[in-house]
Amino acid sequence: MTLTELAQRLGCRLDGDGEVEVVRVAGIEDAQPGDITFLANAKYASKLATTRASAVIADETVNGAPCPVLRTREPYLTFAEAVALLTPRRRPAPGISALAAVDPTAVVGPDVTVGPFTTIGPRARIGGGTAIESHVAVGDGAIIGADCLVQSHAAIRNDVVIGDRVVILDGAVIGSDGFGFARRSDGTHRKIPQVGRVVIEDDVEIGANSTVDRPAVGETRIAAGTKIDNLVQVAHGVKIGRNVLLAAQVGIAGSTILEDDVMMAGQSGATGHIRLGRGAIVGAKSAVTKDIDPGQHVAGVPAGDVAEWRESVVLIRKLPELRKLVAALESRLAELEKKGTAPESPKAVES
Amino acid sequence: MTLTELAQRLGCRLDGDGEVEVVRVAGIEDAQPGDITFLANAKYASKLATTRASAVIADETVNGAPCPVLRTREPYLTFAEAVALLTPRRRPAPGISALAAVDPTAVVGPDVTVGPFTTIGPRARIGGGTAIESHVAVGDGAIIGADCLVQSHAAIRNDVVIGDRVVILDGAVIGSDGFGFARRSDGTHRKIPQVGRVVIEDDVEIGANSTVDRPAVGETRIAAGTKIDNLVQVAHGVKIGRNVLLAAQVGIAGSTILEDDVMMAGQSGATGHIRLGRGAIVGAKSAVTKDIDPGQHVAGVPAGDVAEWRESVVLIRKLPELRKLVAALESRLAELEKKGTAPESPKAVES
Amino acid sequence: MTLTELAQRLGCRLDGDGEVEVVRVAGIEDAQPGDITFLANAKYASKLATTRASAVIADETVNGAPCPVLRTREPYLTFAEAVALLTPRRRPAPGISALAAVDPTAVVGPDVTVGPFTTIGPRARIGGGTAIESHVAVGDGAIIGADCLVQSHAAIRNDVVIGDRVVILDGAVIGSDGFGFARRSDGTHRKIPQVGRVVIEDDVEIGANSTVDRPAVGETRIAAGTKIDNLVQVAHGVKIGRNVLLAAQVGIAGSTILEDDVMMAGQSGATGHIRLGRGAIVGAKSAVTKDIDPGQHVAGVPAGDVAEWRESVVLIRKLPELRKLVAALESRLAELEKKGTAPESPKAVES
Repeated sequence: MTLTELAQRLGCRLDGDGEVEVVRVAGIEDAQPGDITFLANAKYASKLATTRASAVIADETVNGAPCPVLRTREPYLTFAEAVALLTPRRRPAPGISALAAVDPTAVVGPDVTVGPFTTIGPRARIGGGTAIESHVAVGDGAIIGADCLVQSHAAIRNDVVIGDRVVILDGAVIGSDGFGFARRSDGTHRKIPQVGRVVIEDDVEIGANSTVDRPAVGETRIAAGTKIDNLVQVAHGVKIGRNVLLAAQVGIAGSTILEDDVMMAGQSGATGHIRLGRGAIVGAKSAVTKDIDPGQHVAGVPAGDVAEWRESVVLIRKLPELRKLVAALESRLAELEKKGTAPESPKAVES
Repeated sequence: MTLTELAQRLGCRLDGDGEVEVVRVAGIEDAQPGDITFLANAKYASKLATTRASAVIADETVNGAPCPVLRTREPYLTFAEAVALLTPRRRPAPGISALAAVDPTAVVGPDVTVGPFTTIGPRARIGGGTAIESHVAVGDGAIIGADCLVQSHAAIRNDVVIGDRVVILDGAVIGSDGFGFARRSDGTHRKIPQVGRVVIEDDVEIGANSTVDRPAVGETRIAAGTKIDNLVQVAHGVKIGRNVLLAAQVGIAGSTILEDDVMMAGQSGATGHIRLGRGAIVGAKSAVTKDIDPGQHVAGVPAGDVAEWRESVVLIRKLPELRKLVAALESRLAELEKKGTAPESPKAVES
Repeated sequence: MTLTELAQRLGCRLDGDGEVEVVRVAGIEDAQPGDITFLANAKYASKLATTRASAVIADETVNGAPCPVLRTREPYLTFAEAVALLTPRRRPAPGISALAAVDPTAVVGPDVTVGPFTTIGPRARIGGGTAIESHVAVGDGAIIGADCLVQSHAAIRNDVVIGDRVVILDGAVIGSDGFGFARRSDGTHRKIPQVGRVVIEDDVEIGANSTVDRPAVGETRIAAGTKIDNLVQVAHGVKIGRNVLLAAQVGIAGSTILEDDVMMAGQSGATGHIRLGRGAIVGAKSAVTKDIDPGQHVAGVPAGDVAEWRESVVLIRKLPELRKLVAALESRLAELEKKGTAPESPKAVES
């Protein structure tokens, strides 16, 4: 594709030769002639001068490219569009594998793919255009919307409801039993039957080997547009709002509410029965233990305001110095006290 | 079911109209007429006055319910019983799917369910009443007891021994190789064959996508009644006692011992070759790095006494204040020292 | 096997009766007559005197064994060899299950095992001697080398390239989509197609339910000899060097580079776009947030030099004491100031 055509399709202004052809998107260091690259992270700005790419996607502030530049206000978003344009989408051909086990009472829409060794349970419903890969278990009465992609080894347990354009990566488990036990007086635990609902709304993505539990009562819900990375735990009764981002290995304990636009970085967690306000940001490895106001950025264990946390981190590093300073003060004070007692002893003063 | 009948079956005293009918258990905020709800967490007490439920399960201290109350000393346990009573158990009909691959040398008890695309290896034994869902791999010589439930995509590897009434959720791996390598002088690592045993005793539950490793020698053992949440790692040679609770994303390193009744909160971990005494409690995100006494409640990284940890957390937050205080003391001290030197200089004193 | 023969095959010097027979390797506490045990961790030295083992593997410094000793400079490595010698390797017989779905365009080498309900996609290539267990999904165009072992429920997604002698444990997902989204101005997120490569080099082991993501552009690569434990997340574009060890539940964020011989302990993490130098060591539960020099040993959140971190941990524990000391200094100072103002008030001095 020529840069002229690509710039037009991406809605970019082109600085440079529009006749140049690009065939692939590549990282700034790996790019070869024929590739278009992008600069969205200032950390890589120094790599620009030596890139071998035939073109670069960048914003208006970027200078010094050795090649034509496609100008955009949102380089990362435009990069995403460029990858989609230059890489044809890979999707299995529609059709139900002869090696799948689809219950006769299941309702399967048009243009659906069902891979080998996949099971679709009684009364399940699969919307048109949805692709379900191999080795997937779709439980009794589960509903999957249109144009979804469910990858290998995913489990969509009974009665789970999934919207349209949802992507479930390999090995994810949706609708597993929540961890609910009541302690008996003899110290053993009685399982609380987990028979509530799980609802995954439109345009959600759930990463590989992540787990979303069903509650005893009520529902677990992940609202539209939320994206969840690999190995994430969403416990029973959790409510996640729209356009939330959860990075890998995050864990959300039972009944907690994440309002819209919350972001939680990798390996962070939230305790149960709390609320993270709209747009709250949680730093990596942090543990949120109480309600967080909308827009608040927190970090640490337990999580507090990120600026205070950063200051604490610095001060902890300086604790050895602080202790030395206090010890020095004590010596100086003792010296003063000694001097003070020479001419006028406390006793003398008191008398 | 009328409240009179429900109260009788749950062993509760009924305050209110016994003719009221309930059909479902629901959360206090979601409950509708026809639902019974429960109050077991003080956090939700303020919701009681406005609940639309037809009845509530609560202890004797609770007042102000707008509906009949089933009184019990253990509301959470009674709630569990109520869910079980009002929600019929969902279990696949017994029978071995024509699409399963059961080795002819495997021994399968009466009333066993084996789902489609499940494999049962040579010499495996499955106890009566056990349900094994689809896509499960039961290895050579593995033994699964009676009345177990093994959900989709679980792997019960060769020679693993599982007791009665055990529940293994989707995608859990029991008997995977422990992470054991010996470093060679050239920096490469030689795998130590992991050929030990894994034993899961009666009434254990293991969560979705959790992993329980087998050791090189000896055994990994999870004793009766222990409940393990999703995405938990139990390394090779770990011994877990009875009625232990491990929340999601906990990790236990090799050869560590958890005595009976230990509780570890979400995302916490224990290093290898240590012992957590009976009834020890480990806070969320904590890292236990040495032996913990029975009954001890620890938190932090590394984990220490929880009260000390809480105090430390507060003091860390106050470090900026402490530094200002020390700086102020230094100024005041310097002022005193200056004054001190005016009438009598240190030199003068020394001379 | 007699100790004489075993010593010879393990390259050890034998102290004691060479006619003694051993048949099994066991832990020092569990060992019975007929077992050989080993002493590689000083923590277990006190158990030596009472072991019932028929022989022990130990280095030259160990005394007091109640049985013959096989002397070696590397007891743990020799133990590994002994386990391999005394435990015959368990490997399924070669052959392609009639219940597998192997695409006719896939190329399968000699002596390959393919288990039931495993799918091998179009144009995939499987090297000679490789064993693929049941329920594995090998995607279109994926390449797996010779003498590999791929366990149940693993997913090797399309176009992934795997070297020789690689071990992939149950449920691991290789080549899942990286977590890459670009934020649109309306707060929704556009998926960046993840169409890059994943390369796993020779002799790598990847643990159960771990995930290795593919990037949008370029590749994710795990170099030869690296060993990865269970439930580990390797994000898109990560480059891991040779002979790296990642313990359970570690997470590496996108585009980060781990040079050769890096070791990361359990539940630790590394943020994106950073480099961990050759041989760097990361403590358990630590979070690496910036580049780490070769050979550096770090711990903490954020991770810093391990010695400084240990000092900080001690000082945090002593914060209550430090605060008391500062309060005492303040009192003493105030006392001095009071005395100071008696004869000469500040005002008087100023006037």
